[in-house]
Amino acid sequence: MLGNFIYSNPTKLYFGKDALNGLNEELPKYGKNVLLVYGGGSIKKNGIYDNVVSVLKANGKKIYEDAGVMPNPTAEKLNEGIERAKAAKADLILAVGGGSVCDYAKAVSVSVHCNDDAWDKYFIRFEEPSCEIIPVGCVLTMVGTGSEMNGGSVITNHKQKLKIGHVFGENVYPKFSIMNPEFTFTLPKYQMISGIYDIMSHILEQYFSGTDDNTSDYIMEGLLRSLIHSADIAAENPTDYEARSNIMWTATWALNTLVAKGKTTDWMVHMLGQAVAAHTDATHGMTLAAVSIPYYKYILPYGTAKFARYAVNVWNVNPEGKTEKQIAYEGLEVMEKWMRKLGLVMNITELGATKEMLDGMVKSTLVMDGGYKVFNESDIRAVLQASF
Amino acid sequence: MLGNFIYSNPTKLYFGKDALNGLNEELPKYGKNVLLVYGGGSIKKNGIYDNVVSVLKANGKKIYEDAGVMPNPTAEKLNEGIERAKAAKADLILAVGGGSVCDYAKAVSVSVHCNDDAWDKYFIRFEEPSCEIIPVGCVLTMVGTGSEMNGGSVITNHKQKLKIGHVFGENVYPKFSIMNPEFTFTLPKYQMISGIYDIMSHILEQYFSGTDDNTSDYIMEGLLRSLIHSADIAAENPTDYEARSNIMWTATWALNTLVAKGKTTDWMVHMLGQAVAAHTDATHGMTLAAVSIPYYKYILPYGTAKFARYAVNVWNVNPEGKTEKQIAYEGLEVMEKWMRKLGLVMNITELGATKEMLDGMVKSTLVMDGGYKVFNESDIRAVLQASF
Repeated sequence: MLGNFIYSNPTKLYFGKDALNGLNEELPKYGKNVLLVYGGGSIKKNGIYDNVVSVLKANGKKIYEDAGVMPNPTAEKLNEGIERAKAAKADLILAVGGGSVCDYAKAVSVSVHCNDDAWDKYFIRFEEPSCEIIPVGCVLTMVGTGSEMNGGSVITNHKQKLKIGHVFGENVYPKFSIMNPEFTFTLPKYQMISGIYDIMSHILEQYFSGTDDNTSDYIMEGLLRSLIHSADIAAENPTDYEARSNIMWTATWALNTLVAKGKTTDWMVHMLGQAVAAHTDATHGMTLAAVSIPYYKYILPYGTAKFARYAVNVWNVNPEGKTEKQIAYEGLEVMEKWMRKLGLVMNITELGATKEMLDGMVKSTLVMDGGYKVFNESDIRAVLQASF
Repeated sequence: MLGNFIYSNPTKLYFGKDALNGLNEELPKYGKNVLLVYGGGSIKKNGIYDNVVSVLKANGKKIYEDAGVMPNPTAEKLNEGIERAKAAKADLILAVGGGSVCDYAKAVSVSVHCNDDAWDKYFIRFEEPSCEIIPVGCVLTMVGTGSEMNGGSVITNHKQKLKIGHVFGENVYPKFSIMNPEFTFTLPKYQMISGIYDIMSHILEQYFSGTDDNTSDYIMEGLLRSLIHSADIAAENPTDYEARSNIMWTATWALNTLVAKGKTTDWMVHMLGQAVAAHTDATHGMTLAAVSIPYYKYILPYGTAKFARYAVNVWNVNPEGKTEKQIAYEGLEVMEKWMRKLGLVMNITELGATKEMLDGMVKSTLVMDGGYKVFNESDIRAVLQASF
């Protein structure tokens, strides 16, 4: 655990089949006006909407609605949400949905009492919130992003062909999240699997980074093994409560800052995946899956020992009689086979990317320090090219 | 992750070589009067006392002292601390030391504004705090108990021959903890190793319990592997910063409620160890080590599959061609060998226990539900007898 760091996570999690009861504990802490934020309306079909509304009413809240948050929430929609929250004089923003809805709620929460353009302030200039923040709570219906216990918020600007994430501080974290694994049962399999790979990518991108051999790496190996184990069960039987609950819990701890402690990260798979999504609007987890194997094969030579450790500790590759390099590559082969079997999309062509988009995608890919190799434009191009 | 649960942990952790700077962030949040709580005075020799006092003074605090907290803090000392905190009109209790000092500070914090007898209220009747709680901060100088990020507080009553732990709610958790691994460098090896086994026991007692196969089990396997890896390095070189920092971090996450989620626990090794300590005043971690192998051999038949998983996933036992039972026992053999090599005390005789104390120790052992086997008096007697 090299370096200095602070750990603090104020989000309170209510987990389990009765998690929604947690709303009765939380709602009395906030004022009367609640902005209920949700997506395309699936929560109206599966009954979650009715349940949430009845708890809100029982707690004497006045409900204002902001529906139609899309899977990759846009800067335009964000501006609409800000206006709705202003009109509602919202005391609490309650996001009911997956990570996109929760991400969006946070972006609204830091913008309502500001006059700046929200996209420019947070996603271009990466400023910190400078005005009153409206508290956010999340009722999770899809897992993957970890947004329920962190400060992350990803917004897409189609005009600028940019999908950008801002990681806010703990004052923007949801005050509470309601996590009932049963709420995820009705999710289409494509979305479930996409979420599973989003979780895996969060863990792997923190695992394959930094230089020290710290406790976070060991925790991540545990999370990965749990995820793989439960993913296989859930793929066969999506209503296996224990598997879905493990996946939900793993998602939270994969990206609530715990496993990042003592590590550096460049989030390169996310940067590449977000560039693909900005051009295709494809599902987040699938964009990550489609670029992952080309990316990891590309950076393997810069971190062979860690890839070999990964092969043995996560994928049970037998190291006997093999070189470190052989073990490392075998790990990626086993991983790729598992991804295909799970049903992940393994190339960006299938996601709607065309060779004509390549230049644009290269341009849309942001680069940060912290990984095994700091990417330049030709690295980006090489990995994207190998992902078609 | 079966069952309903809430996760919330409000403690802020400042970690690393510069962690003490965190005091400058925290102190302004509290009033002028600080009760500085510490142990036998080793912090005066190694300079930590002077550093802390100078930060307190720089922040304009009035310092009151409560020194001499012993490794197993007593009910009598607790009453003394309550009087000191009252006299100081303490706005903040700052514990500088190991888990005992931090545990003790919490017990004082919930008692100062109460009229009840603290021992009776919290450690016999297990009541919740019913009066104003003084905020607590910890500067950690010895790791093991996890007290820096939980509500645990263990107090010993020598007259009653009882050592009892109360797990308080999050309103009693330290508001912040300062965790500089270098502060643990001067600790004698016996204490360091004892702390390491305390950590291991915390993880194992949560791991060998409950019936479900959940993410917590996988996280615990990661923590155990990290601990074993770093313990071996620290035993050779106690000033290896990375090893000591990993041990410190593992200790926190072993007992801050995370890995307990979805599990049940009876804490039977602690119950047995605490009974031994109540009669011998032996070092906490060593009492746990001395009863562990007899205890685990005793309960292995009630959880053979989990012990086999432990052998393979934590101790790298090769399962090929062996029965589940053989694998399980081999795991405990490898563990025992490792414990001896590390220098742990492996029997209670060496800790000062005599056969004459057996009846008393059996009587002092509390029993809870939740483990693989709910212990009765004859189970307790059998394990203690095998521990001489």
